[in-house]
Amino acid sequence: MTIKAVIWDLDGTLADSAALHYQAWQAIMDRYGIFYTYQMFIDEFGRNNAEILTKHFDAADPATIQRVSLEKEADFRALLTPGVLQPLPGVMAWLAHFRHQGIVQVVGSSGPMANIAAMVRALDIGDYFLALVTGTHLPKGKPDPAIFLRCAAVAGVDPVHCLVIEDSIHGIEAAQRAGMRSVAVGALAGSAALRALCANPAAPPCLALASLDQITTPSSLFE
Amino acid sequence: MTIKAVIWDLDGTLADSAALHYQAWQAIMDRYGIFYTYQMFIDEFGRNNAEILTKHFDAADPATIQRVSLEKEADFRALLTPGVLQPLPGVMAWLAHFRHQGIVQVVGSSGPMANIAAMVRALDIGDYFLALVTGTHLPKGKPDPAIFLRCAAVAGVDPVHCLVIEDSIHGIEAAQRAGMRSVAVGALAGSAALRALCANPAAPPCLALASLDQITTPSSLFE
Repeated sequence: MTIKAVIWDLDGTLADSAALHYQAWQAIMDRYGIFYTYQMFIDEFGRNNAEILTKHFDAADPATIQRVSLEKEADFRALLTPGVLQPLPGVMAWLAHFRHQGIVQVVGSSGPMANIAAMVRALDIGDYFLALVTGTHLPKGKPDPAIFLRCAAVAGVDPVHCLVIEDSIHGIEAAQRAGMRSVAVGALAGSAALRALCANPAAPPCLALASLDQITTPSSLFE
Repeated sequence: MTIKAVIWDLDGTLADSAALHYQAWQAIMDRYGIFYTYQMFIDEFGRNNAEILTKHFDAADPATIQRVSLEKEADFRALLTPGVLQPLPGVMAWLAHFRHQGIVQVVGSSGPMANIAAMVRALDIGDYFLALVTGTHLPKGKPDPAIFLRCAAVAGVDPVHCLVIEDSIHGIEAAQRAGMRSVAVGALAGSAALRALCANPAAPPCLALASLDQITTPSSLFE
């Protein structure tokens, strides 16, 4: 089945901004007199800002939580100066390969659009994409398939011709529920959770790759 | 007819980057020993880079034209430091009003995605949008309605419930051909070309506003 559109997750897939997020978290916690270690960051990674802040700010009202959360993301974006973030290994070759094949590319990320735009700008990869789409305006996050279905719609491509590239188990499940093939990258590729998800013969095929630089002609992956 | 999605043109509508484009053009022309005046810029504004460069570079091959064009756009983005660009009058109030009404907002721009992401970043307005969409990957530019139909698709909204905000006659024509209502802003609002286009009683309504700050409750515009 031909691939006509590729939908990229951003964080952890196109580039890894975890170190910059830690830097932003540490700065903001420090500003409010809260001691925040790297281990705390690792333990809480993947939870949303409100959950993290509610845990560390005693008796803070929702308005304060919201304000500090926005402050943290603005700090993160301020750290995104050109050159500070690099595409993950293999990413540039995949982007160029798909473009050369005439395959439409779209970013479908759960992150806030302000961060998506800032990361795409800092990585200088904007011109590969027809569209950047955030899940934050949709009622449910991944593993709900809505974001990937919106990406397919903007690409003008049927889900069966879409390929999703993801680093999270929720993202791979969202791809399957959207009826899309997927590539699981990074640490996820070796996980038991992924093996279990991809063992379902009724689901669209998914492929596990520790790194995108293991493959040079990705459009032939599922042929 | 209720507005459920607003599709924003970017340049000249959300913000005016003409002065920065002139700065980038002048720098690049200077680098290649070409004298480039503000009057030349004004006369050529709206033409694509290849046309402008082919006129000024004697006997340049397409690869050189393409390389210099990318160089000019990278120079433009390098100028987009935070604070250098401001939203046009009324824009922030309209963005906030639509968000408050629960109306989905999308950017649909003919510009390169790298510029869209950089401008949205510099303006710090990313979080108002579900998606940023470029027309550069589509076969035809505005007045072809394709870009606005893609924006409606990603918004999950029927074109009759979409409102386009534009500063160019091609953009308003694209909106009409997409079956969408529109607001024409800036100098376009007073033009004879717009009056002619909007005089067609069979086309979706369009409204002319010299500046968005003339209206404070835009979602009631067409009720």
